[in-house]
Amino acid sequence: MFEQLGLIGCGLMGGSFALAMKKAGLVKRVVGYSKSPSTTDRARQLGVIDVEAPSALLAVAGADVVLVAVPVAATEATLKAIKHLVTPQMLIMDVGSTKSDVVQAAQRSLRDQVGSFVPAHPITGREVSGVEHAEADLYSGRQVILTPTERTLTAQLQDAEKIWTALGCRVTSMSPESHDAAFAAVSHLPHLLAFAMMNSITGQAHGDDFLSLAGPGFRDFTRIAASDPKVWRDILLSNRDELIAQSKQFQQALHNIEQAMEKGNAQALEDMLTLASETRAHWRMGAKRK
Amino acid sequence: MFEQLGLIGCGLMGGSFALAMKKAGLVKRVVGYSKSPSTTDRARQLGVIDVEAPSALLAVAGADVVLVAVPVAATEATLKAIKHLVTPQMLIMDVGSTKSDVVQAAQRSLRDQVGSFVPAHPITGREVSGVEHAEADLYSGRQVILTPTERTLTAQLQDAEKIWTALGCRVTSMSPESHDAAFAAVSHLPHLLAFAMMNSITGQAHGDDFLSLAGPGFRDFTRIAASDPKVWRDILLSNRDELIAQSKQFQQALHNIEQAMEKGNAQALEDMLTLASETRAHWRMGAKRK
Repeated sequence: MFEQLGLIGCGLMGGSFALAMKKAGLVKRVVGYSKSPSTTDRARQLGVIDVEAPSALLAVAGADVVLVAVPVAATEATLKAIKHLVTPQMLIMDVGSTKSDVVQAAQRSLRDQVGSFVPAHPITGREVSGVEHAEADLYSGRQVILTPTERTLTAQLQDAEKIWTALGCRVTSMSPESHDAAFAAVSHLPHLLAFAMMNSITGQAHGDDFLSLAGPGFRDFTRIAASDPKVWRDILLSNRDELIAQSKQFQQALHNIEQAMEKGNAQALEDMLTLASETRAHWRMGAKRK
Repeated sequence: MFEQLGLIGCGLMGGSFALAMKKAGLVKRVVGYSKSPSTTDRARQLGVIDVEAPSALLAVAGADVVLVAVPVAATEATLKAIKHLVTPQMLIMDVGSTKSDVVQAAQRSLRDQVGSFVPAHPITGREVSGVEHAEADLYSGRQVILTPTERTLTAQLQDAEKIWTALGCRVTSMSPESHDAAFAAVSHLPHLLAFAMMNSITGQAHGDDFLSLAGPGFRDFTRIAASDPKVWRDILLSNRDELIAQSKQFQQALHNIEQAMEKGNAQALEDMLTLASETRAHWRMGAKRK
């Protein structure tokens, strides 16, 4: 049980964490700060936070647990802003979708206090953003990846595991590098492709006609293209090396299918589609590895 | 009101049509045929059809409305098989996702009876296939594209419009060529990319690890990759020229985003993601064009 959550970034992810912590009875009080005062104000009106802080630093004052829920490129400046009030007893986490850069930013900004920081990536999200869409169940039933380093304090790591478990998550730990390679493949690349798909259609003369005919397959395929552009700008830049590598792999797989199409090789085409279809049909989100 | 539906292909699409027609009180009796006798048998056990026909031709005997719901490449052979029992009073439709090839196949196979054939494409589907997944509401609330030709009989076209409207669909007519260009962009390309995405991941050494970490974004993005490989083999081959053209457009859009990433041009990247995000956020499935 924590006394006070300091929430920096009262958007979808941060707001949902505050609501989940309260619902689980894990925290007595939430002090929140967002870059935009109207967002902080709205978060208080909606009962997502209890008290508005005028700065990130003041959101941390008196907190025993802190969540940094800002676009990943803002992590370093945020941690620098709060460094003077970070204590060895405090648990600080983020929710960023990239981890190598966040770990480096934490080391640069928190220095001797970096042991209090446990990098976290809850595998959830929605295509809408903003505190209006925050919900206490956003994290329930999801995976959370922690990417601790050698300098992470054991007490903080254990507390982080306890919190996410209490919120209904399955917690996995891995290195920041393994995390970023995996999420380039299964999250960042799908987002990149969905963004490109939308821009490809809108760039065509008949794009609006095409869109008016699109059905449920298109709806689900492109859902993530509506994601927050600033959040994803940072993710795509932060993990660009892994992402470009994954994109090259993808383009090769695409080329292989197109070649079978162009040659009219129905059997090779069917074989490739069968592999994809069976793999996807047997996949279950969050299933443990065999 | 029809007396007898002849259903050729008792899978997800055909079976759902039979259930929908019965539920709407539009048909008294369904006689069904599938290539695999066990499928026909199962369709009867499930109450999707009333009578099993031992051949496509016998499924058409006595029918006043016929639905051909087979992979598009099987359309021509199917229509040839039933030609001798096609009458000028009969309405024949298909549900294929490509239309130029289906129209040509109908002209070649039905010849002077081609006026009875109304090419139809209901914009629906599921990632599962088979008569077990047939449901009476699959078509409800969806768009249906009809692509009649100069030779299509007016009475049949009007009956087709009445049927789909009675099943809760919004009916639109266009040329087969316009249809195929649009669906290359908003349906066939997303399927192609989703298939390629799955094969790209499974082709990697850590593919299984990556898949075990994938979340809801990946789940929705790749849902259509589980689609029926034989159905999609035919669609990708049948519409390959339009599809390859759309894929080139897409790859250019992807290249543009990747260039901004590689140059570290955050503003250009954000602009492109914002365009994609806003377009997708404002899009509504089935909304009429402004």
